[in-house]
Amino acid sequence: MIIQLKKDIATSERLDIEAKLTGNGIQAVDIHTQYNHYLVAIVNKEIDIRTIGKMAGVADVHRVTDAYKLVSRKWKLRATEIDLGDGVVIGENNFTLMAGPCSIEGEDQIEKIADQLVKSGVKIMRGGVFKPRSSPYAFRGMGIEGLKSFYEICRSKGIKIITEVMQVSQIEEMFDYVDIFQVGARNTQNFNLLDALGEVDKAVLIKRGISGSIDELLQSAEYVFSAGNERLMLCERGIRTFESAYRNTFDINAIPILKEKSHLPVIADPSHGIGIRKHVSRITLASMIAGADGAIVEIHHEPEKAFSDGQQTLNFEEFEHLVEQIDMLREVVK
Amino acid sequence: MIIQLKKDIATSERLDIEAKLTGNGIQAVDIHTQYNHYLVAIVNKEIDIRTIGKMAGVADVHRVTDAYKLVSRKWKLRATEIDLGDGVVIGENNFTLMAGPCSIEGEDQIEKIADQLVKSGVKIMRGGVFKPRSSPYAFRGMGIEGLKSFYEICRSKGIKIITEVMQVSQIEEMFDYVDIFQVGARNTQNFNLLDALGEVDKAVLIKRGISGSIDELLQSAEYVFSAGNERLMLCERGIRTFESAYRNTFDINAIPILKEKSHLPVIADPSHGIGIRKHVSRITLASMIAGADGAIVEIHHEPEKAFSDGQQTLNFEEFEHLVEQIDMLREVVK
Amino acid sequence: MIIQLKKDIATSERLDIEAKLTGNGIQAVDIHTQYNHYLVAIVNKEIDIRTIGKMAGVADVHRVTDAYKLVSRKWKLRATEIDLGDGVVIGENNFTLMAGPCSIEGEDQIEKIADQLVKSGVKIMRGGVFKPRSSPYAFRGMGIEGLKSFYEICRSKGIKIITEVMQVSQIEEMFDYVDIFQVGARNTQNFNLLDALGEVDKAVLIKRGISGSIDELLQSAEYVFSAGNERLMLCERGIRTFESAYRNTFDINAIPILKEKSHLPVIADPSHGIGIRKHVSRITLASMIAGADGAIVEIHHEPEKAFSDGQQTLNFEEFEHLVEQIDMLREVVK
Amino acid sequence: MIIQLKKDIATSERLDIEAKLTGNGIQAVDIHTQYNHYLVAIVNKEIDIRTIGKMAGVADVHRVTDAYKLVSRKWKLRATEIDLGDGVVIGENNFTLMAGPCSIEGEDQIEKIADQLVKSGVKIMRGGVFKPRSSPYAFRGMGIEGLKSFYEICRSKGIKIITEVMQVSQIEEMFDYVDIFQVGARNTQNFNLLDALGEVDKAVLIKRGISGSIDELLQSAEYVFSAGNERLMLCERGIRTFESAYRNTFDINAIPILKEKSHLPVIADPSHGIGIRKHVSRITLASMIAGADGAIVEIHHEPEKAFSDGQQTLNFEEFEHLVEQIDMLREVVK
Repeated sequence: MIIQLKKDIATSERLDIEAKLTGNGIQAVDIHTQYNHYLVAIVNKEIDIRTIGKMAGVADVHRVTDAYKLVSRKWKLRATEIDLGDGVVIGENNFTLMAGPCSIEGEDQIEKIADQLVKSGVKIMRGGVFKPRSSPYAFRGMGIEGLKSFYEICRSKGIKIITEVMQVSQIEEMFDYVDIFQVGARNTQNFNLLDALGEVDKAVLIKRGISGSIDELLQSAEYVFSAGNERLMLCERGIRTFESAYRNTFDINAIPILKEKSHLPVIADPSHGIGIRKHVSRITLASMIAGADGAIVEIHHEPEKAFSDGQQTLNFEEFEHLVEQIDMLREVVK
Repeated sequence: MIIQLKKDIATSERLDIEAKLTGNGIQAVDIHTQYNHYLVAIVNKEIDIRTIGKMAGVADVHRVTDAYKLVSRKWKLRATEIDLGDGVVIGENNFTLMAGPCSIEGEDQIEKIADQLVKSGVKIMRGGVFKPRSSPYAFRGMGIEGLKSFYEICRSKGIKIITEVMQVSQIEEMFDYVDIFQVGARNTQNFNLLDALGEVDKAVLIKRGISGSIDELLQSAEYVFSAGNERLMLCERGIRTFESAYRNTFDINAIPILKEKSHLPVIADPSHGIGIRKHVSRITLASMIAGADGAIVEIHHEPEKAFSDGQQTLNFEEFEHLVEQIDMLREVVK
Repeated sequence: MIIQLKKDIATSERLDIEAKLTGNGIQAVDIHTQYNHYLVAIVNKEIDIRTIGKMAGVADVHRVTDAYKLVSRKWKLRATEIDLGDGVVIGENNFTLMAGPCSIEGEDQIEKIADQLVKSGVKIMRGGVFKPRSSPYAFRGMGIEGLKSFYEICRSKGIKIITEVMQVSQIEEMFDYVDIFQVGARNTQNFNLLDALGEVDKAVLIKRGISGSIDELLQSAEYVFSAGNERLMLCERGIRTFESAYRNTFDINAIPILKEKSHLPVIADPSHGIGIRKHVSRITLASMIAGADGAIVEIHHEPEKAFSDGQQTLNFEEFEHLVEQIDMLREVVK
Repeated sequence: MIIQLKKDIATSERLDIEAKLTGNGIQAVDIHTQYNHYLVAIVNKEIDIRTIGKMAGVADVHRVTDAYKLVSRKWKLRATEIDLGDGVVIGENNFTLMAGPCSIEGEDQIEKIADQLVKSGVKIMRGGVFKPRSSPYAFRGMGIEGLKSFYEICRSKGIKIITEVMQVSQIEEMFDYVDIFQVGARNTQNFNLLDALGEVDKAVLIKRGISGSIDELLQSAEYVFSAGNERLMLCERGIRTFESAYRNTFDINAIPILKEKSHLPVIADPSHGIGIRKHVSRITLASMIAGADGAIVEIHHEPEKAFSDGQQTLNFEEFEHLVEQIDMLREVVK
């Protein structure tokens, strides 16, 4: 059960509500986000929610039987929009493209790619500076200095930044240079990181785990939301299966299902989702048709020379063609 | 290596070619299909294929290193088209819709659904009369009598028929009443069935195995082709994974990859691919964008009363809406 | 619900029982096996089974809520034993080893391996004559002539035979030369084959499907049993997962679970279960400890020269060592 | 390539070696652990390692082509032993049992279970104080205060402690109260955590990821080792598959394969590996036969009342029976 409290609720009113719940054997969690104040209760028995709904200080009350609560569509039918400022809004009325290299490699690379984004009308650039790598001997990214360059160049061109955060201690140092914190597939269930991201007022994109279930992704999002941050997106990036003809199995089914179960925007990652450059555009378009609210795509001016993931990275010509196709589909999707 | 032989090749010429191969330690399989005559050789060592290409009786020669040969794109760049007669052609220039109930239930049901297909301009009806069921106590289909009704009604309305064949002995009794033999996901590696279907001149659609790899699907198709039947389609119907939020994981990646690897038409089965009625249309459209040459969709005048698979079956209204959306996308895909 | 009928039940008594069931809205399937006569009813509503139990002609009645019925432990607590004659019995009191080559290759090979079995005290020899192969160009086995040699040599040495049957039409030609029909992993849900094997009085071993669930394996066994054949074994041979460090993921969990759910003997196939020769013995012993009633192991006098599966085939020295270890464990398992 | 350096190597000697490598286009990583000093080089081209082996300051040199290096068996044939002090050593000559509750719940619970361990001769107690939970609303453990109680009670009884660490900042506060830091399945690729654990001189057990490959587990161990900590164990705890008859698919194959590929001890976690109480003991024994060096098992004085994982937790009677069976098997395994 989710109880939306009035913004000006009196403490005594809140205590009354909690007392009422306790009297019914229900524990409630008190949740403050940037925007709202909620009580979330795990209810195992029948209770007439109308008796709660009538209490002073209650704005609304909803029954939510899912394991996740605040990220559920069951209480919030209207899709969440995330406003990054400067007119950049992620949400249902607009398929948002984010693009950029797997890894930030240096100023020249950032400049070239950011210029391409400007040319293509894309407002958000991706690029890793902290890179999770299976092997300790692989390139692990340029770190915070890389991020600062990334920030300066993008700000000057009016481009927003999404980049991966790998641990709690990085949040503070990254905060000023990031528009969207990305939680990678290996950290989907890094609950301390999720808790900490719940405490900052900055948009967060959570990738589905390597073999994470849809339900687990939604519960991970619930961590961030219930810790206070409503500015959340979900990302389908392919799951691990037995098939070895491509990198991951892009779970196209997950898109309509996430849209049905949650009010949060759903972003596709076709680059990791298939992992084969020549097929990335088709999967991007398919995810758009399936209902995704956006896509995050790897591009590079010279994919063959990229520090990482070159095999799944589009060059500028391929990217421009993709942008054209997306624009054509926009008409149809409406 | 695939050696395409001239249609009028003399026996002595063929023997010369085989002798040349044997002399190089290569075993060749002699393959006659409805349309062509090939020698397929499994070559483990280097040989200059031009020396073969120049021999009398050889039309063309190709190096194919895939485990599958005749179904590979490597020797046949032009996509295969399958002509079912009466202007019904399955291939790349046309997204072909096949629709109908999971199970044939009786004449009234066939009539109603066939009429809807006529109304929607759909030329191929699906419907199972031999039903593979996990439990021996479940409804196993109306059998050959059901097929005869199915045939009579569809013929009178100009509709082609696709239906599943489960074992070799059924091929002959079904032959006259079927336009496309469907091999189900549980029989993808029923090699005796594949061999037998290679010997008939009737189109065949092979579904990918429940957890079959893309490579295995192509090798199963190779069974049919190498036994003599070029009139083949491949079908992606979802794979089994850990995810339980839907029935199967529709492998959208498989579509562009099958199209790249093989010249055969690729058909999507979104009904089994997601298994949830309200999402079937989205997955159909996504598969179209991903490059599928057609889709096979479960529909019923009263899905709630269907003998099987009602939960993933569209009603007529949903179906009509899907047909409209497909028609809109046709313009874009071009 | 399973109703065991008395052997001498009168037709009128059976009709009375069926009438009683019909009166309660219950359909029953009448099943005759080699040993018994049952009525199996799929019951969706509550019924007091004692009222059935008291009727004339009823030997016993059991509530079985599993999807499978006759193979369930719920009505038959005592483990099934399968007597192959000549003192060879497969069941719980004895870990039964079956061994032999992947493929029967010729008389010399059969002789050598059969002699080794005699030497090691092993009573059942495996060997494929009809080989399911992913590629149509691979060796498909020696066929029925190979089986006849296999039979003659084994009979002369007192060895029983288990070999794979791939389609219905082979059953009759193989019948006289086989002690156990093996259903391979690609045919676990070949329901026509299962039905047909239910009609013969010869032991059957059913392998779990390549990605078959435990429940599906039990339902496949139900096909054979409900078609009339109680002489059944289940075989765990590894499932398909994302892991590529070995051939299949041997599902050790399946062994205690199958033993809990069913009264049928459970046989391990460690050769396919791990697919790496040097680890086959460890997996065999682990499956024994986990509760398997036997194992089927690939051996060859020269694994390096075997026509198929050499990489997972033990040589005679390794096999003798395994037999010794099994004998040591027998003491402990008791 | 792994170059073991002499302990008393002169700086000039090390620089000479690095210069030699650089001259051959090879980058080397300089690694100091508690015990040794290594240079690890990722070599993509041929180099005669003997020319390195002869250089001053080199103790030994090994070619290791695996993605992981220092944890590979290829350079260290002798199995690693981990000495926890007071005669508690984990390694190949001894199957080490660790047991305890899923979650630490309070002093009374710790006392009871620790007493049972003393009675059974078990020297290491498990128990979570920081609990990773899919839902933010679930019990997340008693935290550091729980750990302090855990420590005090166990120290007084001569019992060592293994418990999960979830993030870098916890390492310091936990350090004094822990004998083995456990990295959970959701953190197997939390590379920051692995790096940080490499910098402490305390034993570490790394669980395989929920769908982590064997190779990824070994590379995660490489993180810890290459950051300086050789006191490492690997843990197989089951992987995620399509099968739903149990909690996870215990990958028995992983045990002999990890033992073959790495010199590190391999511990089985049968509680999570099957997740069904009545089958836990069988899987423990099977893993022992398969070559595991130990097992970590969930036990509780009242499993039905455990705060978490009760369904897979043994009671004391079951545990005592398991200890007896392990002792019986010890004789055989020798």
